[in-house]
Amino acid sequence: MKHVFKQKSPLKQFVSELLSGNTVTLARAITLCESQKTADRKKANDLLQEILPHTGRSLRIGITGSPGVGKSTFIDAFGKSLTSFGKKVSVLAIDPSSAKTKGSILGDRTRMEELSKDPLAFIRPTATGNSLGGVADKTREAILLCEAAGYEIIIVETVGVGQSETTVRGMVDFFLLLQLAGAGDELQGIKKGIMEMADGLVITKADGENEKRARQAQTEFQHALHLFQPSELGWTPKVLTCSALEKKGIDEIWKLIEAFHSFTTKNKSFQKNRDRQNLSWFHESIDSLLKRNIFQSSKHSTKIKSMEKKISSGKIMPSLAAYEILKMLLK
Amino acid sequence: MKHVFKQKSPLKQFVSELLSGNTVTLARAITLCESQKTADRKKANDLLQEILPHTGRSLRIGITGSPGVGKSTFIDAFGKSLTSFGKKVSVLAIDPSSAKTKGSILGDRTRMEELSKDPLAFIRPTATGNSLGGVADKTREAILLCEAAGYEIIIVETVGVGQSETTVRGMVDFFLLLQLAGAGDELQGIKKGIMEMADGLVITKADGENEKRARQAQTEFQHALHLFQPSELGWTPKVLTCSALEKKGIDEIWKLIEAFHSFTTKNKSFQKNRDRQNLSWFHESIDSLLKRNIFQSSKHSTKIKSMEKKISSGKIMPSLAAYEILKMLLK
Repeated sequence: MKHVFKQKSPLKQFVSELLSGNTVTLARAITLCESQKTADRKKANDLLQEILPHTGRSLRIGITGSPGVGKSTFIDAFGKSLTSFGKKVSVLAIDPSSAKTKGSILGDRTRMEELSKDPLAFIRPTATGNSLGGVADKTREAILLCEAAGYEIIIVETVGVGQSETTVRGMVDFFLLLQLAGAGDELQGIKKGIMEMADGLVITKADGENEKRARQAQTEFQHALHLFQPSELGWTPKVLTCSALEKKGIDEIWKLIEAFHSFTTKNKSFQKNRDRQNLSWFHESIDSLLKRNIFQSSKHSTKIKSMEKKISSGKIMPSLAAYEILKMLLK
Repeated sequence: MKHVFKQKSPLKQFVSELLSGNTVTLARAITLCESQKTADRKKANDLLQEILPHTGRSLRIGITGSPGVGKSTFIDAFGKSLTSFGKKVSVLAIDPSSAKTKGSILGDRTRMEELSKDPLAFIRPTATGNSLGGVADKTREAILLCEAAGYEIIIVETVGVGQSETTVRGMVDFFLLLQLAGAGDELQGIKKGIMEMADGLVITKADGENEKRARQAQTEFQHALHLFQPSELGWTPKVLTCSALEKKGIDEIWKLIEAFHSFTTKNKSFQKNRDRQNLSWFHESIDSLLKRNIFQSSKHSTKIKSMEKKISSGKIMPSLAAYEILKMLLK
């Protein structure tokens, strides 16, 4: 990352290129923020602080769904529908598994064939990092950079692994769950807690013989969602169906998100939610920095491992073990 | 707490009284563990370490439900049914609101009229503390003390406030959600995430004219639960109805819990779950001790408040603000 801020393009020049929507600059800015080097981190912080006043103006949409639900096809069709209204759309991804596989989710640009050729769209393969927390920070920063570059809709995609949905839910305005139709008990199980985080649920592949089953699933899910309290935003989640193949139901999804946006803007929960998210980001960052600084010592982690063994074999109370660890840390 | 370990009853004597099931000693032991004094804490730790080998042999049941669902009446009837088989039952409670009201949940012993007179039952008003974390630790310790005193069923009751259900879920083997019958949209909303934590759901007040509606609700909830994946334990939650008034359906709930116990013992998830809970307890204790030690300085908390203001007004990136805080902490 030596030449990010070259002699001829110091920070100010770089920022002005970014603000003008230069996608090469945007891509380089994201790469800079992803870098693990200390010097790059300093540059990244300066850059982010500089663009901060130009952020926050997009609608941030999180999209999740199990493998096989047709996520790429859906985002391809949904994104194209948005760019057809003249909207600038960017697609980011959080994929915790990519730390090992080096990017399984968006590695292949051909996954979104139409959208990737669209000049109004910016698709970025998933950030890599050592931990979900690290990946989350980088994605949050990428959202801000895309906003500074003028993208109006930011889609954050996640594959349902581990805690990734909760992480994405914490950085978007609207959270969309994609689900396949099935019947009764055949409905594939939804990971615990996911359905309750959704602002909208879409039954995908509602075409051909599948359409009737999709309508049934729609009714069932809408009914199940009624069992829950409305979210803190006061919004009651809706269930829709769509066929990315036949391009049916895509516009309705955008209308739903627009309705959500105007509803939450009116009752002021939109901004409140973002404020809450920023404060959580702050406190999560303190926690993870603290832990990284304290637990990186191998002496400490050996001691913690040995305490865990003692706890598992019933030799020490967990709270007492924690007290012992703290005495060591504060020495 | 001066006279807990008197000249005539040093630790060993106290422990042997506790192990023999002396309820006065048990009550004093719980009070000792609840004390905020440093000297008492040291005694409490010695005591807990001493009784540790005699713990773990009970079935720990968490019970939650909104106010009005008939929780006290249910626990009274359920507890009596257990003592009628000769089981020793203890009832503890977590009520985060009690930090302010000094115990709203179990303050009144007459709430469980029958059970409180039963020699096989031990009812303990809720622990008080400055934080949910503190209350949780004390309740976990009370569970261990009750087990050492020979109680075979420990009921941990919580009123659905804040994060208290998650806290209770983290310390019990079986989590029971009580719910009132309603119809369709009238079903009162369930707090997000609660239904997905339940191992069993009971529709209360299924008597008289309400019985039919209770059966309908049973079907609806059982259907909704099918939408979720089975828990890590491999167990699929069941929905039952009961009337504490007419003493109907109470035995079935105990049979369900017994079925759960034998199912999870067979597939070994019962012990795995307890091991996981102990390790979480350990790590949560480290976190909370760390935070208490670091953030108790008023200088630090002033700085954090001022950073929060800057974040809310969009003047600094949350991650950058966290970095600034850490620099200060590690100085």
